[in-house]
Amino acid sequence: MIESMASIDVPVALLGYGTVGSAVDRLLGESAEDIERATGHRLRVVKALVRDPARERVSPPAAGTLTSDFAEIRDDPSIAVVAEVMGGLDPTGGYVLDLLRAGKPVVSANKQLIAQRGAELFAAASEAGVQLRFEASVCAAIPVVKVLRESLIATNVHRILGIVNGTTNFILTEMEAGRSYGEALAEAQRLGYAEADPTEDVSGADAAAKMSILATVAFGSRVPLADVDHEGVDMVTPEHVAAAHELETVIRLVGSATLVDGKIEVRVHPTLVDRHHPLAKVEGAFNAVMLEGDAIREITLEGPGAGGIETASAVVADMVSVIGTTGTGFLQNDACWRSLERLPPGEARAPFYVMLSVDDRPGVLADVARCLAAHDVSIARLIQHQGDGEATLHVVTHVTASGAVAAALAEIEALPETRARSTAFPVVSERVA
Amino acid sequence: MIESMASIDVPVALLGYGTVGSAVDRLLGESAEDIERATGHRLRVVKALVRDPARERVSPPAAGTLTSDFAEIRDDPSIAVVAEVMGGLDPTGGYVLDLLRAGKPVVSANKQLIAQRGAELFAAASEAGVQLRFEASVCAAIPVVKVLRESLIATNVHRILGIVNGTTNFILTEMEAGRSYGEALAEAQRLGYAEADPTEDVSGADAAAKMSILATVAFGSRVPLADVDHEGVDMVTPEHVAAAHELETVIRLVGSATLVDGKIEVRVHPTLVDRHHPLAKVEGAFNAVMLEGDAIREITLEGPGAGGIETASAVVADMVSVIGTTGTGFLQNDACWRSLERLPPGEARAPFYVMLSVDDRPGVLADVARCLAAHDVSIARLIQHQGDGEATLHVVTHVTASGAVAAALAEIEALPETRARSTAFPVVSERVA
Repeated sequence: MIESMASIDVPVALLGYGTVGSAVDRLLGESAEDIERATGHRLRVVKALVRDPARERVSPPAAGTLTSDFAEIRDDPSIAVVAEVMGGLDPTGGYVLDLLRAGKPVVSANKQLIAQRGAELFAAASEAGVQLRFEASVCAAIPVVKVLRESLIATNVHRILGIVNGTTNFILTEMEAGRSYGEALAEAQRLGYAEADPTEDVSGADAAAKMSILATVAFGSRVPLADVDHEGVDMVTPEHVAAAHELETVIRLVGSATLVDGKIEVRVHPTLVDRHHPLAKVEGAFNAVMLEGDAIREITLEGPGAGGIETASAVVADMVSVIGTTGTGFLQNDACWRSLERLPPGEARAPFYVMLSVDDRPGVLADVARCLAAHDVSIARLIQHQGDGEATLHVVTHVTASGAVAAALAEIEALPETRARSTAFPVVSERVA
Repeated sequence: MIESMASIDVPVALLGYGTVGSAVDRLLGESAEDIERATGHRLRVVKALVRDPARERVSPPAAGTLTSDFAEIRDDPSIAVVAEVMGGLDPTGGYVLDLLRAGKPVVSANKQLIAQRGAELFAAASEAGVQLRFEASVCAAIPVVKVLRESLIATNVHRILGIVNGTTNFILTEMEAGRSYGEALAEAQRLGYAEADPTEDVSGADAAAKMSILATVAFGSRVPLADVDHEGVDMVTPEHVAAAHELETVIRLVGSATLVDGKIEVRVHPTLVDRHHPLAKVEGAFNAVMLEGDAIREITLEGPGAGGIETASAVVADMVSVIGTTGTGFLQNDACWRSLERLPPGEARAPFYVMLSVDDRPGVLADVARCLAAHDVSIARLIQHQGDGEATLHVVTHVTASGAVAAALAEIEALPETRARSTAFPVVSERVA
């Protein structure tokens, strides 16, 4: 038990005082009365760790708050909870570990830290009997972690589908409106949705880290980032977008986490989503996460998945939840309690969309169909576009194993009449409800 | 502090053992390990109040659980939390009040009870220092109450827009597909979405009760059910649906709760919703609630808003939250802490859609336009349909006070050339993002 919890005034600390950190400080002040009504306590930032306390700041904290000495936070017994809003893996990970070991609850907004060092950090938190909360590490203010851990405790969530990267969703919706990938990316950069180096977002790596966290929470088994197959949006062409439209779907970068016969399958891919599916309706830089469970059918949470103030609001909510549950043991255990195997990569089952460029001459379709059939890949829908001696085939398969599709495509690509590398995207169509 | 909380095994009780009650019992059993991991406790139903314990049941509880004697629950000091899943106002309200006064936390799934007797019940809970949770009373498993109270504590939520009645949403989406109101209602009844007497749903009364609860939670000020103006879907005609389509909108029964200059405005009306708005995309018997706040822009939660097992899952989550926060004082205060005035009814501002049937002859449009202008109602869009000496005008106004629209329509209806009663629905178009 933190000693200061007996009084109304509860000192808290921040690691970092940038955009998110200063917003956390401001929100704690502005919401002080709401927080006191909910918890009986007032949370006040007494220390914030920064590299250079002397540097000029746009919104500086109260005098004496900034420090470059981590020990001032770790060793202050009055500090009841620490929010990590500095980002990065090092030295951040060491600081968080030290705080947990010192018996201090930590709230983190750090996706990479939770995804890559979660096992170690949660073990330390459990051992010390303190909470480590991380709502802000996934989809900013959308409270998907809290909903998974607290509201859906009795629902047996077995699948998560998410649009968890706003940059790529913006790019894909711009492409639907007729832009090329390059134009859409440039527009995203102009609006500040994409970084100058957009690799982390467009490659699907950012979404993969978020899906690894969500899958870990939902399934209670650690999902290492390396187990999350991901593919980005940079290979999506206007031709794919047009074909998706013709097939009454839209292309979205979808993260999926599924429990299949006790095995875990998590991936991020450009995906054709039926236009009536809730995820098809997520536009621009928004995020949405659909949780499917036995007792709830499906619940979808949608909102802005990024932004300094949005992230800060999730950090504050976590700090309040820590204060509101201190001493009860609630959610202080590592959410991981079992060790489930990964579904072997080729065994993931879905309908697939496949695009093939082939010579436009008799017998070619028969060859393609034979390769698919040889791997038990059956065709649900086929659209053929002609042009200049070339034919483009857009195929939607019935539900099939991804490995079978890959094997069939490898054979098709080896055919002399095949002109270009094929693409294959999963398709999301069915709804639970 | 409940005495049993020191041990792992925590006895709980139910008021009622019907569809929801037996599902709560079952979910508590099936999720026992998950709940123990989260809280350190196992929740076990030891008593359930029913009228006739001897009656044959499809899924009976453990022997000795059923009782018709309320005092056995109220006076058992080992029972740590009671879930009220019996419904009705009387004797239910008296039971809940007695339990709270006896120091027992209560979880209620009872929309009418919370909407109509909330003030009294929350006062009793605050006085006794115990929690009264009510997630399941609004939109079943969609965790909108928890998200409002815990995740959005620092976001200053100032508007809620919700599709909170699945029956009417089903009817309206069926009408979009070409059915009449009567056909759609019959289909809803056939599928079990609508009662034999559908009044409560189709009149908007059910949605009004839910909006009164959500507004109360969001704004911290009691919103009596009587203050919620509501209109149902029974007056929606295929002509409205077609006009809405032509205006690139869909008709939804939308509940809105807004904070306008420190005054509260809550209502439920058939509403034209821009087809790109998240609420336009909610189909069939689903519910969705959009929360708008300073720090989050908007967060939308969507899911099934009814169902026995869905409701039970929300009840269990609330019971777990009570157990997980017992002794901390977290959320044990009445969420209402101020008393805000109601915005005078005519002062609610929105764009409005108005349908008018008038004689098809020169000068009529000028008369109509003059009446609108006289009340400062300016026209954003107008569609005129001709037919058989009659013209139907579909008008969308700019943002205007509802009182001004009503006054203008009263004048228009008094014109000799006006053929039928006009209709006016609010329009939801703008998004925060």
